[in-house]
Amino acid sequence: MTCELVFVGTELLLGDILNTNAQYLSKRLAALGVSVVHQSVVGDNPERLAETLQIALSRSDAVLTTGGLGPTKDDLTKEVCAAVFGLALEPDARSLARITAFFENKGIEMPPSNAKQAMLPRGAVIFDNNNGTAPGCAMEKDGKHILILPGPPREMQAMFEESAVPYLKPFTSGVILSKEIRTFGIGESAMAQRVDDLLSLENPTVAPYAKSGEALLRVTAKAETAAEANALLAPVIGEIHSRLGDVIYGVDVPSMEAATVALFKEKGLTMATAESCTAGLVTKRITDIPGASEVLRCGFVTYAADTKEALLGVKHETIKAQTVVSEAVAAEMAIGAWKRSGASVAAAITGLAGPGPDETGRSAGLAYIASTDGKTVWTKAVQTGHAGGKGCRDYNRTVFATHVLNELRLFALFAPETRPGGQPIDYDVKDMTA
Amino acid sequence: MTCELVFVGTELLLGDILNTNAQYLSKRLAALGVSVVHQSVVGDNPERLAETLQIALSRSDAVLTTGGLGPTKDDLTKEVCAAVFGLALEPDARSLARITAFFENKGIEMPPSNAKQAMLPRGAVIFDNNNGTAPGCAMEKDGKHILILPGPPREMQAMFEESAVPYLKPFTSGVILSKEIRTFGIGESAMAQRVDDLLSLENPTVAPYAKSGEALLRVTAKAETAAEANALLAPVIGEIHSRLGDVIYGVDVPSMEAATVALFKEKGLTMATAESCTAGLVTKRITDIPGASEVLRCGFVTYAADTKEALLGVKHETIKAQTVVSEAVAAEMAIGAWKRSGASVAAAITGLAGPGPDETGRSAGLAYIASTDGKTVWTKAVQTGHAGGKGCRDYNRTVFATHVLNELRLFALFAPETRPGGQPIDYDVKDMTA
Repeated sequence: MTCELVFVGTELLLGDILNTNAQYLSKRLAALGVSVVHQSVVGDNPERLAETLQIALSRSDAVLTTGGLGPTKDDLTKEVCAAVFGLALEPDARSLARITAFFENKGIEMPPSNAKQAMLPRGAVIFDNNNGTAPGCAMEKDGKHILILPGPPREMQAMFEESAVPYLKPFTSGVILSKEIRTFGIGESAMAQRVDDLLSLENPTVAPYAKSGEALLRVTAKAETAAEANALLAPVIGEIHSRLGDVIYGVDVPSMEAATVALFKEKGLTMATAESCTAGLVTKRITDIPGASEVLRCGFVTYAADTKEALLGVKHETIKAQTVVSEAVAAEMAIGAWKRSGASVAAAITGLAGPGPDETGRSAGLAYIASTDGKTVWTKAVQTGHAGGKGCRDYNRTVFATHVLNELRLFALFAPETRPGGQPIDYDVKDMTA
Repeated sequence: MTCELVFVGTELLLGDILNTNAQYLSKRLAALGVSVVHQSVVGDNPERLAETLQIALSRSDAVLTTGGLGPTKDDLTKEVCAAVFGLALEPDARSLARITAFFENKGIEMPPSNAKQAMLPRGAVIFDNNNGTAPGCAMEKDGKHILILPGPPREMQAMFEESAVPYLKPFTSGVILSKEIRTFGIGESAMAQRVDDLLSLENPTVAPYAKSGEALLRVTAKAETAAEANALLAPVIGEIHSRLGDVIYGVDVPSMEAATVALFKEKGLTMATAESCTAGLVTKRITDIPGASEVLRCGFVTYAADTKEALLGVKHETIKAQTVVSEAVAAEMAIGAWKRSGASVAAAITGLAGPGPDETGRSAGLAYIASTDGKTVWTKAVQTGHAGGKGCRDYNRTVFATHVLNELRLFALFAPETRPGGQPIDYDVKDMTA
């Protein structure tokens, strides 16, 4: 099956929003074995939308639209799609009841304009929206299909998975399966060099990517069945494991935080954090994972220097002698968090996120991380290489936080004597003020 | 001038990369007064690319392509564009010298395949690439233009600004300016209803959007000069202000956190937080804003129930009697954070992010927020209406955090006697354990 994507929204044409739906749908349709050979963006303009749909239907089996299902007058996707297939819109009682209930749950009355969202093309397969008000739908005419999904990514993704995938399944053949091998602590080029010969394989293919300071390999196999695809993937993934070893932190895990939380759960450990420059990003990412309450006890966001002393017991002299961004302050923050949290392991970070340098002239992109279980203290200096400029603050904070998560993971994974890369620092934990 | 964007690359169709070029170019072209009414994505396939170009040229004055300028066999954009205009490719000596020098600077010999990048359409205006090897170009035939830019965003953006903008300038007239009016605490439909008649204005246009629990209006004016565009915008924005009043938290501010941090700076106030369900997201968002160190003192992420007692002094009996997700616990968390932080205002949140219900059977989407300056305590119960399902946890946490930021903002904005919506709760701050 071939499918074209049509994204409807003047906000896309004006560049007001980034079209993340394009990537999501392209990736998912490829995995389903649906061939996407065209994507288009048009505004909320009925003539241009109709023309775009006609062209798309003339060359593809299906068209999938997102956007333009809102309650306002300029939301016209459903109307135009129905007209292209010569279908009338009719009120759908079930959808209207669901929209009314959506507002009732929020304790507000449904604005009359939302009733428009329950108008659906006659004979369409209706897609429930479990995350918003606008239902989607699918319709078929002369073997051609139009699928209509809402624009907000959260609503679109859920509806795609819950309704569009089952609708499309009977028309797809074969499967494309891919696995992501996630690494940390190695650059994309260095990773790619170690598997250079595998990058020219044809089935499965092996492709390197870099994302927010992480490098990953995507291994993709095409086959008639999932079992056959997996049989193609297994030996190549095994070979990559033997080449990359410890830098791999997970295969098909969604993120470093997911890997770290899963490992702490498995080992029955708990954690605590003390964050300065990342200021909550580490605990935010840990708690993105449902069930994080089993492992996270608490976190301290000590942004002002004096709160590191007041809340964590960092010594005034240490800050004065070493500055606030130093290995010693990170170590005392970690020990302070460990003592106050009752957690098995505590990790702390202090650093320079940017955009500007600090008062001593050190550039952004530098951070010190420490972690402790009350027995040994491990530290790590991080240099991201992003010393300023647009986006440096975001990039540095993301990479810093990933390093903190990785330090927690390494603590849970290795006994002190087997942990690769360095030695714990010499620090008398008991000597710290309580 | 109307311009269509054609993005060339199989990696876009497979969803392997996010098309950030689309947003960048759309935004910049709008600002230049160039009307972008269509965008397309096609793979590295000469027939489909030629067809897409023909359609685009038939309805627009100019087509701008990105991608497909690499040294490999499947990079065909220049070849196909030249063929569509009936032009031959010729070696360009200057470009070849620049590409050779690019490799020399890196201390490596130019791979022979890169010579292909110096082949350019006869008579084209050549765009130098100061950040990579592939030059771009522009060509004109019968009043229609094709502009060709490389795919990597860094190369594309620089070439667009340095070469494409000067090329397009003579054909553009006027500017498009838009302003975002951001609201909180009102749904998109309710907001749209209050300005319903303005939504059919033609210049400026007024369009409603919803994003992560916020509703906003985008007002866009087209005029000969920026001053004239601003003169068109001003009265409409004034009218919207008079209709929406207090629910507007900013015009052309990037986010609630930016508005809140700016207000605290302006008033010389500091803040602290105590977060349970959002677990650092509030402080993360505050510190996304450079210079947040002027206003944020510290934050407590008290995820495990007993850490609310140990770190914030929440009374054990309060948790036992009211459960951990309650107005009283939020109030005691806020008071505890205020006492320990030395901040002017502290805000706290405890809630159910989901995906599942709590042990008492209450659904996700419920949170209690409290804020205090040590004199009065304000509380707010939030119901997001997202009680479960994919994405509910992310959505709830985002909306919860925005509410906390808004409560801080309201605290800084109003004296207790003028603050709209309710009364402070009756809570003896001094009575709390220190």
